[in-house]
Amino acid sequence: MIDFKGVFPPVVTPFTVNGAFDTKALKFNLEKYVETDLAGILVSGSFGEGAYLTQAEKVAVMKTARTVIPEDKLMIASTGTETTAGTIELTRIAADLGADSALVITPHFYDGLMDQATLIRHFTAVADASAIPILLYNVPLYTHLNMTVETILSLSSHDNIAGMKESSGDVVKIASILKSAPAFQVLTGSGSAFLGALTIGAIGGIMGIANLAPNEMVQMMNLTARGDIEAAAAIQRSMLAPNKAITTGYGVAGAKAAMDMLGYRGGHVRAPLVDLDSGSKDKLRAILQEADLLI
Amino acid sequence: MIDFKGVFPPVVTPFTVNGAFDTKALKFNLEKYVETDLAGILVSGSFGEGAYLTQAEKVAVMKTARTVIPEDKLMIASTGTETTAGTIELTRIAADLGADSALVITPHFYDGLMDQATLIRHFTAVADASAIPILLYNVPLYTHLNMTVETILSLSSHDNIAGMKESSGDVVKIASILKSAPAFQVLTGSGSAFLGALTIGAIGGIMGIANLAPNEMVQMMNLTARGDIEAAAAIQRSMLAPNKAITTGYGVAGAKAAMDMLGYRGGHVRAPLVDLDSGSKDKLRAILQEADLLI
Amino acid sequence: MIDFKGVFPPVVTPFTVNGAFDTKALKFNLEKYVETDLAGILVSGSFGEGAYLTQAEKVAVMKTARTVIPEDKLMIASTGTETTAGTIELTRIAADLGADSALVITPHFYDGLMDQATLIRHFTAVADASAIPILLYNVPLYTHLNMTVETILSLSSHDNIAGMKESSGDVVKIASILKSAPAFQVLTGSGSAFLGALTIGAIGGIMGIANLAPNEMVQMMNLTARGDIEAAAAIQRSMLAPNKAITTGYGVAGAKAAMDMLGYRGGHVRAPLVDLDSGSKDKLRAILQEADLLI
Amino acid sequence: MIDFKGVFPPVVTPFTVNGAFDTKALKFNLEKYVETDLAGILVSGSFGEGAYLTQAEKVAVMKTARTVIPEDKLMIASTGTETTAGTIELTRIAADLGADSALVITPHFYDGLMDQATLIRHFTAVADASAIPILLYNVPLYTHLNMTVETILSLSSHDNIAGMKESSGDVVKIASILKSAPAFQVLTGSGSAFLGALTIGAIGGIMGIANLAPNEMVQMMNLTARGDIEAAAAIQRSMLAPNKAITTGYGVAGAKAAMDMLGYRGGHVRAPLVDLDSGSKDKLRAILQEADLLI
Repeated sequence: MIDFKGVFPPVVTPFTVNGAFDTKALKFNLEKYVETDLAGILVSGSFGEGAYLTQAEKVAVMKTARTVIPEDKLMIASTGTETTAGTIELTRIAADLGADSALVITPHFYDGLMDQATLIRHFTAVADASAIPILLYNVPLYTHLNMTVETILSLSSHDNIAGMKESSGDVVKIASILKSAPAFQVLTGSGSAFLGALTIGAIGGIMGIANLAPNEMVQMMNLTARGDIEAAAAIQRSMLAPNKAITTGYGVAGAKAAMDMLGYRGGHVRAPLVDLDSGSKDKLRAILQEADLLI
Repeated sequence: MIDFKGVFPPVVTPFTVNGAFDTKALKFNLEKYVETDLAGILVSGSFGEGAYLTQAEKVAVMKTARTVIPEDKLMIASTGTETTAGTIELTRIAADLGADSALVITPHFYDGLMDQATLIRHFTAVADASAIPILLYNVPLYTHLNMTVETILSLSSHDNIAGMKESSGDVVKIASILKSAPAFQVLTGSGSAFLGALTIGAIGGIMGIANLAPNEMVQMMNLTARGDIEAAAAIQRSMLAPNKAITTGYGVAGAKAAMDMLGYRGGHVRAPLVDLDSGSKDKLRAILQEADLLI
Repeated sequence: MIDFKGVFPPVVTPFTVNGAFDTKALKFNLEKYVETDLAGILVSGSFGEGAYLTQAEKVAVMKTARTVIPEDKLMIASTGTETTAGTIELTRIAADLGADSALVITPHFYDGLMDQATLIRHFTAVADASAIPILLYNVPLYTHLNMTVETILSLSSHDNIAGMKESSGDVVKIASILKSAPAFQVLTGSGSAFLGALTIGAIGGIMGIANLAPNEMVQMMNLTARGDIEAAAAIQRSMLAPNKAITTGYGVAGAKAAMDMLGYRGGHVRAPLVDLDSGSKDKLRAILQEADLLI
Repeated sequence: MIDFKGVFPPVVTPFTVNGAFDTKALKFNLEKYVETDLAGILVSGSFGEGAYLTQAEKVAVMKTARTVIPEDKLMIASTGTETTAGTIELTRIAADLGADSALVITPHFYDGLMDQATLIRHFTAVADASAIPILLYNVPLYTHLNMTVETILSLSSHDNIAGMKESSGDVVKIASILKSAPAFQVLTGSGSAFLGALTIGAIGGIMGIANLAPNEMVQMMNLTARGDIEAAAAIQRSMLAPNKAITTGYGVAGAKAAMDMLGYRGGHVRAPLVDLDSGSKDKLRAILQEADLLI
């Protein structure tokens, strides 16, 4: 079984001013990430505007990424769609293109009908059909669905479900899962609750803030591992404001603008999302400076 | 400007047991609907599992439907996607295929970022580019977004935005819109609040229950128009249980099963949705009988 | 059994500038109301800052009110508290002071524990012990609890539970109740959904807006009764803005300010609520003028 | 300024089978608590059925408690009511009866009107008038209000507001507060998120579970202080199930039943709450055994 321990950025998908996928910019960013101690990369996730990509574009992103990501780092592909058949198909393509694992979001358009039995059926069918290990993706912020601890525990016994990305930010939930399934690999999706997640047993995180601050997030993990909670907490508190700015604040447009400021190539977002105006950029720059990410 | 007065079923998209789009079944249903006093048909909406259809399938549905729907009845196509560019493109295709109007749902994956200015920008861009009139689609049940009265009023002044489908079930909202924009064509999406919507000024409805009970819904509208509220209210109360069964109860799988019972061809749903088991079918049959839809 | 058909204002409790209950102001208002076609009066409800009154003050309010309200108009007293024993006691006092009926809100501090069985036990115990008929009070806005249709139907068969005040604004809920219990007396608590409620079978309303516009609300009811929906709808639309201003807008402080403008004596609110500042009063005055309540 | 570092149980208020306050049972429990390393006691809080107590009963609880609680342990009294004047009055009484501090819940009946300016006004007025330091109490579970970080920071600069009980369970919120106000004394109200709260800087907790497991909660705090996160996490995971059972599971009735099992005197709850039936007691007993609280 793959070891998912570590920090993973859910990389942004850079677009040109005309809205086209900017292959060069993605490569540029990935080349910087692979020189750090990041454990791997997630492509086409919700932070990568995956909901705005066609299937052909997702294929292009995976192909590009795998050329840069070396074998000793993991490439996780986000392959969830609204249908079971569509998810199985995209997961098959991801495996063919060299993804090490597939992250599968809960289908959610008919969220009122996605009862726990339905979710179990869906994930089981996808995991049964997949050539690579599956990670469950629970993200109530976007799906308005919350997989219960019972559902997660039930799925955790599947041979091909390695773990999950838990993005509710609820550390009690992570604790409850690990109490009953200590070997299940839980990665938090919350950059603000990273320390809390680690102390209760999460093995790492797939967090938007790792696009901006990969080294700081890796360091937080190392400090926690050797029991230096105070130093880890200092980094955690320092990351709160930038993390908020690029999630509930400005969203992915904020992340892209921040990356531009920090020497990456964030590029443009797709409409209806909108790039940051200059006033917002000034505020964001001040937040990055206050957090010592920008000098 | 098109007159949208009347009742429209958001038709289900029948699938075969293997999950393929069943062209013949759709034709069969449409041929029955066009012989009633329904004002027209909505294709590929949320009740038509639009979220589960590829773009090629949506094209096939529209082509099939237009061959059956005569010129004196409206074909409305649901063309909203998550991106502005994607919505413009699908709306263009719909117009080319003979749709009279396009129903555009609020983009919602990043619902926390879809502020009212962003929604206005999105709908304005789509309406500017469209060759056919646009209907806004507000459906918090699925989108977890609620367009404000102010946003709707702002968009109501656009020459190419004819009206909206208001599916929150909130009759006060409809009243508030019509107070300021009496010519804006509001169709309710709630079969249970149809009478309430009509009495406050809605001009009709696009309601799942019209797949099952087209004549009853048309009759409710006629009775209300001639002031016979008591008779209209009797139908409304009678439709409550079947309407609930096919929406928040069993969802579209319930609607399809009910259609099979009533002489239509509902067909199968796509996974992760699941067809009704026999116990649920028995309960549904009893509900249809109690409402005098099934003898 | 008492007939609750008609319009009832949930009267405000006027306070002096020092926060004391202003007996004279309450009398002044009641004397005006009893000369209209209002069916009666509700005292100490949520619109009467009942949550801010001590038990002694509630007694004083009831005593004062009964001296003004004639026998041919109903005095309904709000007697619900958090405990079953406390509610029984206050209901006994209300009966002794001449209340015709008691309105009992769902206990709600521990709302997560108030399951439907608990609510049934509570209301049954209160109704069993009460010398006067009970009206259930469902108001999710304040209680964050929503009694289900099943719970209401179960309680509707109690000999001493005459009906309910339904303040969720959900006309479908009213329809569902009356479908199964046509004799249950449902009064809406929503001034904005009054027409919708009436057309589906509600027998009247206990609505904050009746403090300001008693005659308009009575007229809406009369017009609906004789099938003149268009005229009723015109009043309904006209009442939307003032109703919003005194509920979700400015709340009871807005209602009191509006009453002062309209020749009643609204008086002050109690902290932490705060009286309207002059800017807000100007906006409110414009709303009242626009609705033809103020000339 | 008082140092609130440590663990505090929000003690239950035992009632006799007839619903009367059971003074002896409260004394019995307190005498056991004061022999542990608990930092103090909270009386009449939401876990003490404070919402079900009359003012006279709250006075009786405080008088009883102070006779048992020695000077070197803190007695915190919950004194918040719906009105500013009522809260000031009860806080004055608490100070006169020897309370070291007053915990003040956000007023919440009109929660839609309790904007942040109103909350600041309320707490400032109470703190200005109080002879003892105030702790803010943020508990969205019961109040459906969530004080913002900005509001808390604004109030944190008041000389007589020492800290807060933060019961949303959101460790990111605690981190955000302490980032800007490192000296503000934050006590978590969540027994399940205790470890997460401590690692980010909370100085302790006022947690229902401390009624049952005072020594375990103190030990978790000591282990965290000396960097033994794994051992602390083991206790945290072990406390999850009992904590859930006495909060969102069975509520205070569960806590009282558990106390009876563990050698305390929990006593009865007041209606509409209901004592645990024997089936629920069996399940609870198993949970306590699984957590090694009951042998």
